Amino acid sequence: MKKYNVAICGATGAVGETMLKVLQERNFPVEKLKLLASYRSTGKKYKFLNKDIMVEELTKDSFKETEIALFSIEAELSKEFAPIAVENGAIVIDNSSAFRMDKDVPLVVPEVNPQNVLWHNGIISNPNCSTIVMVVAINPIHKISKIKRIVTSTYQAVSGTGREAIEELKKQSRAVLDCEKVISEVYPVQIAFNTLPHIEDFFNNGYTKEEMKMVFETHKIIGDDSIKITATAVRVPVFTSHSLSVNLELESKLTGEDVREILSKAPGVIVMDDPGNLIYPTVLNSSGNDLVYVGRIREDNSIENGINLWVVSDQLRKGAATNAIQIAELLMEKGLI
Amino acid sequence: MKKYNVAICGATGAVGETMLKVLQERNFPVEKLKLLASYRSTGKKYKFLNKDIMVEELTKDSFKETEIALFSIEAELSKEFAPIAVENGAIVIDNSSAFRMDKDVPLVVPEVNPQNVLWHNGIISNPNCSTIVMVVAINPIHKISKIKRIVTSTYQAVSGTGREAIEELKKQSRAVLDCEKVISEVYPVQIAFNTLPHIEDFFNNGYTKEEMKMVFETHKIIGDDSIKITATAVRVPVFTSHSLSVNLELESKLTGEDVREILSKAPGVIVMDDPGNLIYPTVLNSSGNDLVYVGRIREDNSIENGINLWVVSDQLRKGAATNAIQIAELLMEKGLI
Repeated sequence: MKKYNVAICGATGAVGETMLKVLQERNFPVEKLKLLASYRSTGKKYKFLNKDIMVEELTKDSFKETEIALFSIEAELSKEFAPIAVENGAIVIDNSSAFRMDKDVPLVVPEVNPQNVLWHNGIISNPNCSTIVMVVAINPIHKISKIKRIVTSTYQAVSGTGREAIEELKKQSRAVLDCEKVISEVYPVQIAFNTLPHIEDFFNNGYTKEEMKMVFETHKIIGDDSIKITATAVRVPVFTSHSLSVNLELESKLTGEDVREILSKAPGVIVMDDPGNLIYPTVLNSSGNDLVYVGRIREDNSIENGINLWVVSDQLRKGAATNAIQIAELLMEKGLI
Repeated sequence: MKKYNVAICGATGAVGETMLKVLQERNFPVEKLKLLASYRSTGKKYKFLNKDIMVEELTKDSFKETEIALFSIEAELSKEFAPIAVENGAIVIDNSSAFRMDKDVPLVVPEVNPQNVLWHNGIISNPNCSTIVMVVAINPIHKISKIKRIVTSTYQAVSGTGREAIEELKKQSRAVLDCEKVISEVYPVQIAFNTLPHIEDFFNNGYTKEEMKMVFETHKIIGDDSIKITATAVRVPVFTSHSLSVNLELESKLTGEDVREILSKAPGVIVMDDPGNLIYPTVLNSSGNDLVYVGRIREDNSIENGINLWVVSDQLRKGAATNAIQIAELLMEKGLI
């Protein structure tokens, strides 16, 4: 079996470290692994298959022998370095928003639109975390009964912001419990024991970037921009895993039982839905796992053909690292690398 | 000014203690205050207007001279003791679900349906906390442009469950931060750093009691059961104040600016909506206050005449204690006691 020279760009971030973990867990055929990060992280060491790998500085010379470059860095840096990696012959799988809405760049969730890896020009975008989680759960339903409208409200974990946000939640939680002063550095408002209806910058229409990503990226991934979507994205004091309350209006009637059956056969989905026996997904079920958990499946009689879902998934894994590595696996399977 | 003999039934609970606080803050004209609770809480002392009041055991003889009885006890106990209080000549304002859907019992939010106190038969019900918070925010909109449909997802605080849940969240949070074993006694699953899509028991239709209360109680309070409503109720690791993501479909078009104007003049509502300047409500704004905070007001273009709102309010106060005492004030204003 061919092995590949892989680089992780942004290796010391929350997603980058998860990429390192997932590559090992999934026995990805790595020939040589490069860990790249900004200058201040160079020298840091990580274990990979029991060998120490030193983090190197990301420069324009980083990609000389790289075949697969997994990027999880700021969008501005992706814009700078992804073309360089491609020039060096690598395929870039980019977790930033830099290229997601670019017509020449596929935006791929392997369970939903695997065919789109076929037409890449060197860069494939990894979608927004909340969007990945949602589309894995709803696309199987959409294939049976077209989704007309989605109303979603999210409950998002701080690790989506990065490692410093995890530390902030820990520190602030302790401060609140100890009745000490709470200091907010990462978020504009205290996140510990609070809800924060603000994820990424605001547009003039009053929506955040995060909320609009759930609209535009869902359209691009599912390949159907007739689906009407509205989102409210909220940060909650949770370390890892995003939860989503998803309300669907379908074109034709599906019962709750129909949806349970469809989703129980769907790739990447696990149905946990027996509330009478206290079986419904929470963050604790999904964190550290690669699947999208769906429960609280209910017919919504406030509208014709309505369905409510509760969807939970580890956004560092399926919502980021795992999805990126699944894209690489798909490229291998299809003989594209 | 006439003063009243008031009893708080369930005085040692999270809502009962808030009732005691709110009575003082609002200078409610109390002649004599009785604090009633179960046998195991008797002897506990509370300060009221600088005097110590001893908690007495709730018995059928508790209401001899009571004129206003504020009940915040289990529904089963309300069913037992409210009629006794009424027989003794008291008006009962009951915070449990015992009588809420009873045709002979008004369900009142003073900002929304004050006229309904007129026809009580001794008992007036205080609505469910999430429902109060929602109707205060949406009724002013409904009066201008009829609401056709509501899709809401809640982010509910643990103090809604009671004091023992506050302690559980504190203990579990410390255990997680200290990497110690987490013990769940109040909730079926860990609540610290988790989201729990389960508030109250499940019905056969897959919805919880809490979710169905938001449907039926909203209909009764607003007096319009043609409003279509679907709710997903979720517990989050927050001590006090419920947050709600509310999506509205209106009969006729209102812009975001229209809604801001309507709500800025609405009783009991405060608009906090300038997201570009980081102004939006969070739990920290509302906790300890009596108003319903609304922000993130946005037109929802996924449907004709759609509006999204983010609503936050202290559910122990406006969602329970304050609303009950406002009902008592209304009875005084209208000369009904």
